[in-house]
Amino acid sequence: MVEDGIELPAVIFFGRISYIVNSFEGEFHTHKGVIDLSELKNLSYGDEVRTHLGFPFKIRPFSTADFFKHFKKGPTPIMPKDIGAIIAYTGLRSGSLILDAGTGSGVLAAYLAYFNRDGIVVTVEKRPEFAKIAKKNFELAGLGNVRLLIGDVFDLAEAFKIKFDLITLDMKNDAEFVPVARELLRKTGYLVVYNPYMDATRRVYLEMQSAGFEELQSFELVKIDLEHKRVGTRPLTKIWHTGFIVIGRKID
Amino acid sequence: MVEDGIELPAVIFFGRISYIVNSFEGEFHTHKGVIDLSELKNLSYGDEVRTHLGFPFKIRPFSTADFFKHFKKGPTPIMPKDIGAIIAYTGLRSGSLILDAGTGSGVLAAYLAYFNRDGIVVTVEKRPEFAKIAKKNFELAGLGNVRLLIGDVFDLAEAFKIKFDLITLDMKNDAEFVPVARELLRKTGYLVVYNPYMDATRRVYLEMQSAGFEELQSFELVKIDLEHKRVGTRPLTKIWHTGFIVIGRKID
Amino acid sequence: MVEDGIELPAVIFFGRISYIVNSFEGEFHTHKGVIDLSELKNLSYGDEVRTHLGFPFKIRPFSTADFFKHFKKGPTPIMPKDIGAIIAYTGLRSGSLILDAGTGSGVLAAYLAYFNRDGIVVTVEKRPEFAKIAKKNFELAGLGNVRLLIGDVFDLAEAFKIKFDLITLDMKNDAEFVPVARELLRKTGYLVVYNPYMDATRRVYLEMQSAGFEELQSFELVKIDLEHKRVGTRPLTKIWHTGFIVIGRKID
Amino acid sequence: MVEDGIELPAVIFFGRISYIVNSFEGEFHTHKGVIDLSELKNLSYGDEVRTHLGFPFKIRPFSTADFFKHFKKGPTPIMPKDIGAIIAYTGLRSGSLILDAGTGSGVLAAYLAYFNRDGIVVTVEKRPEFAKIAKKNFELAGLGNVRLLIGDVFDLAEAFKIKFDLITLDMKNDAEFVPVARELLRKTGYLVVYNPYMDATRRVYLEMQSAGFEELQSFELVKIDLEHKRVGTRPLTKIWHTGFIVIGRKID
Repeated sequence: MVEDGIELPAVIFFGRISYIVNSFEGEFHTHKGVIDLSELKNLSYGDEVRTHLGFPFKIRPFSTADFFKHFKKGPTPIMPKDIGAIIAYTGLRSGSLILDAGTGSGVLAAYLAYFNRDGIVVTVEKRPEFAKIAKKNFELAGLGNVRLLIGDVFDLAEAFKIKFDLITLDMKNDAEFVPVARELLRKTGYLVVYNPYMDATRRVYLEMQSAGFEELQSFELVKIDLEHKRVGTRPLTKIWHTGFIVIGRKID
Repeated sequence: MVEDGIELPAVIFFGRISYIVNSFEGEFHTHKGVIDLSELKNLSYGDEVRTHLGFPFKIRPFSTADFFKHFKKGPTPIMPKDIGAIIAYTGLRSGSLILDAGTGSGVLAAYLAYFNRDGIVVTVEKRPEFAKIAKKNFELAGLGNVRLLIGDVFDLAEAFKIKFDLITLDMKNDAEFVPVARELLRKTGYLVVYNPYMDATRRVYLEMQSAGFEELQSFELVKIDLEHKRVGTRPLTKIWHTGFIVIGRKID
Repeated sequence: MVEDGIELPAVIFFGRISYIVNSFEGEFHTHKGVIDLSELKNLSYGDEVRTHLGFPFKIRPFSTADFFKHFKKGPTPIMPKDIGAIIAYTGLRSGSLILDAGTGSGVLAAYLAYFNRDGIVVTVEKRPEFAKIAKKNFELAGLGNVRLLIGDVFDLAEAFKIKFDLITLDMKNDAEFVPVARELLRKTGYLVVYNPYMDATRRVYLEMQSAGFEELQSFELVKIDLEHKRVGTRPLTKIWHTGFIVIGRKID
Repeated sequence: MVEDGIELPAVIFFGRISYIVNSFEGEFHTHKGVIDLSELKNLSYGDEVRTHLGFPFKIRPFSTADFFKHFKKGPTPIMPKDIGAIIAYTGLRSGSLILDAGTGSGVLAAYLAYFNRDGIVVTVEKRPEFAKIAKKNFELAGLGNVRLLIGDVFDLAEAFKIKFDLITLDMKNDAEFVPVARELLRKTGYLVVYNPYMDATRRVYLEMQSAGFEELQSFELVKIDLEHKRVGTRPLTKIWHTGFIVIGRKID
């Protein structure tokens, strides 16, 4: 890494509005005018670049939180805390082959692709309108290792000739897919299911138990943000629930 | 990865007792007798290996949870959920240079080394008795990319000629080290502080704010495990608090 | 209680807008016209009463939640869950003499007056503009057993010739008032302090400890509401933090 | 209340062992010898009373927490925080007629009887062995306004000629009893169901919804205790889940 240069993707911002930038060439259209991307080549983080109308945009590095912030999202997108739990509990390392069923807007697939830079994420979405959103999100983030398939994962699964290191499910009929997922996993691979509902979480857990998954656990992570004001420190009054996670492993 | 072979480290277990195994050579002493490790070379996960007294141990793959389970630990060890948050919010990828101040029993450094396989973790511990425990834990886990230094991190910091991508602190005088940490970070690098106490968390946050760290956030993750019994599903009656996390980034 | 009659206060509502009604005489002005309150005398809950413009308002019984819903409130009003904890942990029963310092908008004093129907609540507020709001709220709720004093509770305390069964504090300099509160309590009486900040909670706790309060505890209650949709059950995505509670008792 | 005298029930304790005392007459057997209860008549809280072996027991007032501490309990007893929520959200005041179905060890019925001093609590338990425990607990607490019935509440319900202000359920087939409970409630009365399981909570909620209950809500209260040590303040590492509460009201 060059200490002072800018790495792609980078983020440019003016006040509270920010954009992800993925190239050092061409024009970039903002709400305050057009930026000549070639100017970024010789700049550093913290520097400014001006639009043709003279508005100064500051440059900051891309952060994983930008997936969550800049993506078009569905109603219950998975949050970084949940991604972190998937990585920490499955020991996911770069170079893995991952199947993600139920792409939605692509937040989970994007994170997995980011952390699995030397591997591949195959993500499957049935609804073309969601696949279209996800495709744009992946391009925005400059992720080259995501393969987006449009179709029913039950049908597509029959054609897969490879075994996966990790399978993640975020779709309605997740419990039905559990036995298929087990077939598609290589030995020692993990299945992770994300679901906002308690009842569905129970069904998935029991299905994984009877399918012979081991190291089974199911949980939710509640993130409590602290607010540090002059007068004192307190939890933010809003605490967010997102969804439940079930993790299991195929040992033999 | 060979589909059917065993990868090191692996875990052998008999009932509820398990051991981490890190070699295919030599003898391994268990509470039920001695195992000849060379036998593992031709076995698969799920197979059994017998001690000289005839007790059968099953073989399963190592999982990151084994750090937490098998390590000698201090009173408030960081948990996988917290490691996951550090990775997800800093975007940590393998190949990084990490400084971990306040090794303790080494749980955090071990996780960081595992996920940073192609990089280096420098971990600093002042108390020799803790450093000794951490050293054994790193050996147990077969981690070759941890450099354990014994000494005061304030003194050692002056000698560092390199800049770090990530610095983690888990030590008493963490707030005082914040300005030093900023000096040691490369641009775009992250500082993460873990502390079980609210008051110390406030001090660190305010210190990082005045030192010019950006993307500042402080939070705690509460893990609520679900229990699925025949009669129904419920949260486990015990929910665990571990500690607060403060994350900030050096932009320029 | 008459099974079919309406008890005061009652609530009348049209769609999502509701009003507390405290008399069976006179006119009541709503956003949809005027209601003749004498009509309510012969009606039952679930019945309708019409405004002079013909809009039908339904009648339902008053509930304690109406304090919270209909009162003008400040930024961090205490919630019913917290009132419940105060009652349950102090064993508060009707007929008590209660001092409430830091009236604010009067939510806590109103609840205490409601549950302490045969006793008295003395509530003290320094800022006249808040006292004005509280006064209106008490009238709205038809509470006849609240005595609202405007002034500094440190000054007023010197004049009290009686001892209280319960003292509640919700004000900035709460820790300083702890020794005074102890003097004002009768033996076996409880002191309860409500504060949204962790640091202030710590100061109060330590102050109560050194002042000799017993049965000391400090906690926060997080209320997790469940949402039951056709597709499943889940925690509402927003979970609310309000404040910390410290409770202690004067034994001798 | 006499400022300096002892009120019954009172608590006597020696170190960590304590007993509830309910009379000023007769002998009381402790693990450290026998106490002559008539001695308590002239003592105050904080004073000591000695056993015939000379061991000094201190006297402190009874607190509602003593129900929870001294009662023989089943596996998932309701906690004071939950009792508080029931009182706060139903506006329960002394003088009510309460039906409690599923007595168990009697913790809930005892709290209700305590706060409903001028009213009656009818509590029904099917299993004689539990009824026996509950009976002892009620005697221990000196509660004279609890009527304990042994039998099936579905059968007994047919014989009730009165209507209740509040009905609480803590039993396995709670959802089935919802329509019966509605019949037994007077207008404006509340039904409260306590259950440790999510699935049962959902069934009860949907049943209450279709039975026409209003002001419906379902939630869980998580109590986070704070620990104030010299080095700082933090949540206790264990946070407790007990059960879910569903509350609804019969309006017409």
